[in-house]
Amino acid sequence: MTEILPLAGLRVIDLTRVLSGPFCSMILADLGAEVIKVETPGEGDPVRAQGEMRDGLSWYFAGFNRNKQSITLNLRDSAARDILRRLLADADAVVENFRPGVMVAMGFGPEELAKINPRLITGSISGFGATGPYKDRPSFDFIAQAMSGFMSLNGPEGTPPVRAGNPISDLVAGLYCALGVVSLLLRRERGGPAGAAATSLTGAMIGMLGFAAANHLATRQLPPRTGNDHPVSSPYGMFRTADGEIAIAPPGEAMYRRLLKALSAEEIATRPEFVTNADRFTNRAAINAEIEARTTRHTTAHWIEVLNKAGVPCGPVMNLAEVFADPQNIDQQVTGLIEHPGHGPVEMLTTPLRIDGAVPPLRTPSPALGEHTDEILASLGLSGTEIAALRAKGAI
Amino acid sequence: MTEILPLAGLRVIDLTRVLSGPFCSMILADLGAEVIKVETPGEGDPVRAQGEMRDGLSWYFAGFNRNKQSITLNLRDSAARDILRRLLADADAVVENFRPGVMVAMGFGPEELAKINPRLITGSISGFGATGPYKDRPSFDFIAQAMSGFMSLNGPEGTPPVRAGNPISDLVAGLYCALGVVSLLLRRERGGPAGAAATSLTGAMIGMLGFAAANHLATRQLPPRTGNDHPVSSPYGMFRTADGEIAIAPPGEAMYRRLLKALSAEEIATRPEFVTNADRFTNRAAINAEIEARTTRHTTAHWIEVLNKAGVPCGPVMNLAEVFADPQNIDQQVTGLIEHPGHGPVEMLTTPLRIDGAVPPLRTPSPALGEHTDEILASLGLSGTEIAALRAKGAI
Repeated sequence: MTEILPLAGLRVIDLTRVLSGPFCSMILADLGAEVIKVETPGEGDPVRAQGEMRDGLSWYFAGFNRNKQSITLNLRDSAARDILRRLLADADAVVENFRPGVMVAMGFGPEELAKINPRLITGSISGFGATGPYKDRPSFDFIAQAMSGFMSLNGPEGTPPVRAGNPISDLVAGLYCALGVVSLLLRRERGGPAGAAATSLTGAMIGMLGFAAANHLATRQLPPRTGNDHPVSSPYGMFRTADGEIAIAPPGEAMYRRLLKALSAEEIATRPEFVTNADRFTNRAAINAEIEARTTRHTTAHWIEVLNKAGVPCGPVMNLAEVFADPQNIDQQVTGLIEHPGHGPVEMLTTPLRIDGAVPPLRTPSPALGEHTDEILASLGLSGTEIAALRAKGAI
Repeated sequence: MTEILPLAGLRVIDLTRVLSGPFCSMILADLGAEVIKVETPGEGDPVRAQGEMRDGLSWYFAGFNRNKQSITLNLRDSAARDILRRLLADADAVVENFRPGVMVAMGFGPEELAKINPRLITGSISGFGATGPYKDRPSFDFIAQAMSGFMSLNGPEGTPPVRAGNPISDLVAGLYCALGVVSLLLRRERGGPAGAAATSLTGAMIGMLGFAAANHLATRQLPPRTGNDHPVSSPYGMFRTADGEIAIAPPGEAMYRRLLKALSAEEIATRPEFVTNADRFTNRAAINAEIEARTTRHTTAHWIEVLNKAGVPCGPVMNLAEVFADPQNIDQQVTGLIEHPGHGPVEMLTTPLRIDGAVPPLRTPSPALGEHTDEILASLGLSGTEIAALRAKGAI
């Protein structure tokens, strides 16, 4: 267990819902921040009702909302907005993923926020950005994958573009927003202004185009989808073995020579059609056939041992059951258990960040809807009578 | 232009190469840090010779190394290691993506680093993590995609697993490492210890499994690859239009009703086989056919206007040329130009973070190999004679 989590003692008001924003605030919570999740009375975050349920608990919701508290506030009600104002006055950051303009319409635009709390940092995630012709369009992970160019690169050669199997744009945007918020907390701590960090689902994914974007900007050529082949390196890809398949990625000449040696196929190096990477790229089918003629002689496990010993990056494609049963991933504690009152232990992904060599802990289970409403309102000085009145009029 | 970049005045020593580490240090540099990239004399970062070259300049290298300085140090030479020691003594953070153990072997293990500079923060990226049975294995983006479970989810239904078209595990791990470093800079600034942040390519990708992991942990069922269909929501996916295709993502009942209304197909809502999402999931082919019977009546552009107006998330699959020509992306300044001496203006992706509403600027072009060696050594107090001696013996 980490002695001091990096964001310990900092308070974040979380106005987000579904995935990208809650992932951002989950990261902040995992790093030690006190995160107060603001939810609509009655419904709450729609994810509470999504994914596989066990005894009425969504494990999807539980994973993305651990380490947070929940208060219900109906932000259409002015008394609830006043409560939010008081929460913001005492917070370090607020994160939101409303469409651009909604915060302003609710009375929480940048000027108002600066008046409420000049030290407050804002983190925002939108579909397309805060300005521009598409700023008011609704968005969603799939649309960002399509419109960012990501899908144009993803999928097997000769087949239509395909979205990633996970909601990658939501997650990358959430991660960027968390980084932006933490960097502004640092700036403020060093005497600078509070300020606002923002990103968008589409922008975050454009930022992940990597060398495909660089090569396109240099040449204006469109990169093809290359499936499991590398766009420029050869050999590289999935190869059949005696009992399955193995991914082999030997980037560069030195690694290629190591691969041939490990395959006992050093004579291939001298064949004129395979001398340079460019030759092997031109004759990809032929070099792949030569590699596979060797890999099919032994099992995947054999080659994983032999190639790793030779320093050649390789591995099997693992499904989720294999991932979570893998000894390396168990060593790395990629999942953790936390007791949910009334639901028993719930297993969930931990954060992939290690702080001082340790996994930031699962401190508290995901909250029931409004679990902390009374406690938080009492901490603001509201009496039981006042809280009951707010509840009676549907403000909380 | 942002007045005060969040990491202005902080110095990062960058021992990384290729992609994941340089992406991490690029993010830190974009946020304002002074990043000193340490490269091997003669060769430097292998990416200098990768990707499309224009007049001898790799645009791939240029993009990922803007805003950095370059010093050459041959870390096999003790005099060069002494220079590194002096650089670290005056730095705020060091980032590295050596295999676990290499820093210790070079004399820069955690204890030595704490002696050199107790305020120094370490950011590390490895293939599989700092401990565990695979810690010494070489890794690579493709292997992390395969072994994290990501590939098991990615690709069209009924086809083999496929890697993402971009080096997503390198980039996500780099982003996590940047977040870890910044969060520790914040902790230090608030009076806490310096400390170490670490992540791995495989761990970072496992952390992006999203609801697939949650559902698997709840049920132990293996999620199928669903291509462009949503694993639980229907209708959802790519639909043909009169002149192409459109991605439509109407999550939830309210959005589904809006879609039907926009398609003038409200009668579908009452058909018994399409009442609930579960019904539509069971009868996915039939509901998709009904949707497509409408979408094929008009062009993609027509439906983008109509559906967005109705509040239904939708969009075309865009290739990279379309992405960079798109008015929204131009408004968002997803690329920028920076003058490279001797090479003219180079266009590259900007960071997707907006700080105080502005794009963190491209301040300086990617450095020539060792461009800042003499200047940095002089700032450490080395004389011209000493620098020449180091160069003569191949230490710099």
